[in-house]
Amino acid sequence: MTLTGQSFIAGCWVNNNDNGTYCAFGPKLNKPLEQAYQNASSQMVDKAIEQAQCAFIEYRQSSFKDRAHFLNCIADEIESLGDALLHITHLETNLPIARLQGERGRTINQLRFFATQLLSESSVFHRLNEFEHAMPHRAPLPKPNLELRYIPIGVVAVFGASNFPFAFSTLGGDTASALAAGCPVVMKSHTAHPGTSELMTKAVERAIKKCAMPSGIFSMIQAKQYDIAHQLVAHPFIKAVGFTGSLNVAKRLMATIQTRHEVIPFYGELGSTNPQFVLKGKDDVEARLGESLVQSMLMGNGQFCTSPGIWLVPKGEQRFLDSVKEAVINSQSDTLLSPAILSSFRKAICERAELEGVTLLAKGEQLEDHHAAAHVFVTDLSTYLTTSELHEEVFGPQAVVCEYDSQEQLQLFVGSLDGQLTASIHGDEMACNQHGKLIESLQYRVGRLIYNQMPTGVEVCCAMNHGGPFPSSSDVRSTSVGSAAALRFLRPLCIQH
Amino acid sequence: MTLTGQSFIAGCWVNNNDNGTYCAFGPKLNKPLEQAYQNASSQMVDKAIEQAQCAFIEYRQSSFKDRAHFLNCIADEIESLGDALLHITHLETNLPIARLQGERGRTINQLRFFATQLLSESSVFHRLNEFEHAMPHRAPLPKPNLELRYIPIGVVAVFGASNFPFAFSTLGGDTASALAAGCPVVMKSHTAHPGTSELMTKAVERAIKKCAMPSGIFSMIQAKQYDIAHQLVAHPFIKAVGFTGSLNVAKRLMATIQTRHEVIPFYGELGSTNPQFVLKGKDDVEARLGESLVQSMLMGNGQFCTSPGIWLVPKGEQRFLDSVKEAVINSQSDTLLSPAILSSFRKAICERAELEGVTLLAKGEQLEDHHAAAHVFVTDLSTYLTTSELHEEVFGPQAVVCEYDSQEQLQLFVGSLDGQLTASIHGDEMACNQHGKLIESLQYRVGRLIYNQMPTGVEVCCAMNHGGPFPSSSDVRSTSVGSAAALRFLRPLCIQH
Repeated sequence: MTLTGQSFIAGCWVNNNDNGTYCAFGPKLNKPLEQAYQNASSQMVDKAIEQAQCAFIEYRQSSFKDRAHFLNCIADEIESLGDALLHITHLETNLPIARLQGERGRTINQLRFFATQLLSESSVFHRLNEFEHAMPHRAPLPKPNLELRYIPIGVVAVFGASNFPFAFSTLGGDTASALAAGCPVVMKSHTAHPGTSELMTKAVERAIKKCAMPSGIFSMIQAKQYDIAHQLVAHPFIKAVGFTGSLNVAKRLMATIQTRHEVIPFYGELGSTNPQFVLKGKDDVEARLGESLVQSMLMGNGQFCTSPGIWLVPKGEQRFLDSVKEAVINSQSDTLLSPAILSSFRKAICERAELEGVTLLAKGEQLEDHHAAAHVFVTDLSTYLTTSELHEEVFGPQAVVCEYDSQEQLQLFVGSLDGQLTASIHGDEMACNQHGKLIESLQYRVGRLIYNQMPTGVEVCCAMNHGGPFPSSSDVRSTSVGSAAALRFLRPLCIQH
Repeated sequence: MTLTGQSFIAGCWVNNNDNGTYCAFGPKLNKPLEQAYQNASSQMVDKAIEQAQCAFIEYRQSSFKDRAHFLNCIADEIESLGDALLHITHLETNLPIARLQGERGRTINQLRFFATQLLSESSVFHRLNEFEHAMPHRAPLPKPNLELRYIPIGVVAVFGASNFPFAFSTLGGDTASALAAGCPVVMKSHTAHPGTSELMTKAVERAIKKCAMPSGIFSMIQAKQYDIAHQLVAHPFIKAVGFTGSLNVAKRLMATIQTRHEVIPFYGELGSTNPQFVLKGKDDVEARLGESLVQSMLMGNGQFCTSPGIWLVPKGEQRFLDSVKEAVINSQSDTLLSPAILSSFRKAICERAELEGVTLLAKGEQLEDHHAAAHVFVTDLSTYLTTSELHEEVFGPQAVVCEYDSQEQLQLFVGSLDGQLTASIHGDEMACNQHGKLIESLQYRVGRLIYNQMPTGVEVCCAMNHGGPFPSSSDVRSTSVGSAAALRFLRPLCIQH
């Protein structure tokens, strides 16, 4: 499939030779790929937003049935991209083909899921609606007819994530939920997978034409320059931002948003350390748990926002430590998504290895120089509590085992814990009951509390919450996965008559 | 009833002689009242917040039934305050006793309404919950049990409003909805009615004791100094802010919030000009409409956030203008809530009178020097569109009649309209149909769209939305009135097992 290297602005692939080009990096080849992508101009961004605003006037009036049809059509068109999509995404990310097939399926299903939700009268698209009949003879004042409905918020800016090139990127959850809510999308492609974005954009382009949707409903911007991102979130027509990425980038975008006349919602899903609480029950800690945690940590070579980064384990569980050690030593290194991520990972690993009271429990096999191998450190909880360097997320295959003495110490840990996307409790019913107070307080630190399961794997369904207290997300009231994700882009309107 | 002049910190009335005192102003007497109120210290504010956080741990685990009982008990205790409450609020606000009786009833009913909502399984407290059963044999991956529930966000800071000393103040909608959601409240009393706040606090103090609720659940801070307000919203334990007041004060508080590590929701209900669209139908404009608009504008002497401030009327509706004129001329002046509001009102009136193309249609009778009399100006829509001074809200009994030529001109008006709490359409079915496009676009500028009724009067019910696009509120996704107001203080949590 031939790539244009262009941005897609309101129905047109726009040629722009004035702003330079950039190339994606191929992690497997360990060098930049050949295809050049033109940096969009600031005028192109303005045009995309203006056309999105024009499209909004038509799109917000579309029926739920038409929107559902459109989302299903986008899903069909992604399927039609076939292996060409997998091929280019594999080149750009070096994520295994099987994983990419799975993620593609999830992305397609997510679009179909929102279509189903739009058509279901019991879904979040209808659930908060209210109608109250007039009481014209009520004293002292009559009551009018009052209808509460939820309308789309306006044009949404979406930022693609590097670690999920399908599910959290061009046509991922943010785009799907915004389009479902009736909001046009101006999408900033992630520079790690511009070819993937171009192909995905071709899919939505075809769906827009087939469904006769307004052409401004979706634009995709290729640009290496940061100022384009800031221009996007500062524009007065942009009414909400969906973002998956790092806290640092999120903070910069939020600072720009705070300079706006109208402060708008910024939905940043920012990652976390996802602590794993291994409880000492009447039985010893399950032998397979260590291996399972290592496997969970290695998902996407540690580049999942739900990757388990801190494992709290009762002191002296040698069998557990041995099983972790064995699983890590037997693991094989792999690439990371970008040279910047690799460099951050290496720096963090070196720093952790130097920390007092922290030792390397095990290291995976390093197959290639430009790979990241699994590293699991071990420390005690007292050291952890006083070593703030350990509290930060390391993006990549890394975890810290914290040995604890007592439930009181665990409670101190929870008390000092920053907001997390998830936490898991590993323990039988009796152990959970014994830790009731701890678990109750843990609820207020996380977006998802998991019993006896790994945090990786985020089900796309009505009961999911993927978000959490700051800094795991920028808005604890919102989820970026599941049907409630659409609520981010809706707002109430009361009609009185 | 004897007043202490003290702040109420986590169950105790605290004496503090180190920080000076202030007095409320009596608008009717046109001088400060005698009772002195001690400015709270910064230590007292910290203590209130810390105790609220401690109370949160217990209160968040209370059953909905216990919370409902508590809210009903607060309502009972307000009733028990009897006429002493009306007496002091009348002194502090000079709002008529009948109006205060009505507002007290509304405030009591609002607490009972949230109690009812807590006990109803179909209310917003339950409506977004989800449970999805596990599918352990699903391929390729099993599905876990997933439960989505909504938990309280944490300690809420509430700022009292001057214009509704009961319904939007100490035990008003923000406090009621936060307590219903399971959040402790630290309340900053409005300096215009500190005695009212003290009495209301006595009511909640008794309810806390009777219901054996944790004492930190409610604190009330008296302070004239602005830095106390900023200290409150900056504290890391504060997780949301409810505010009703001016855009200027809101902007300053938001700037402080933006310096926090964790940016928290700021729910500011900020007022608007509430445009009234009088459509030309096949019949002439209804004769009584002018009079009704004047009466609506005069509610609370123009100090309602839903006061109709801009009246768009077809050119040449002399009968309408005459009826407005007559109603205004026959109106009698009254006090405003504070000398600052009076001074701003006078300044705005003088400025408007000087604007080119703007003339005074009528003025009400000025009974006393320190009163504000009704003023209605008239201009044409072209002048309005190019005169930004007219776009701002004037707090007090004032409105501008804008005569328009055509529907196209009205569309320009809507296109340039800032966010509004409400707008009203006055016209028969045929006229509304003829203005379909205009009305559709108007929905995206307002929080409540009203047909053939006045904007003043905000029903406390499930279908209400009291909020709107910026700058009418700081968060278009939220309402400060009605059952959905509680959603502001809840956030999703997923339990996976």
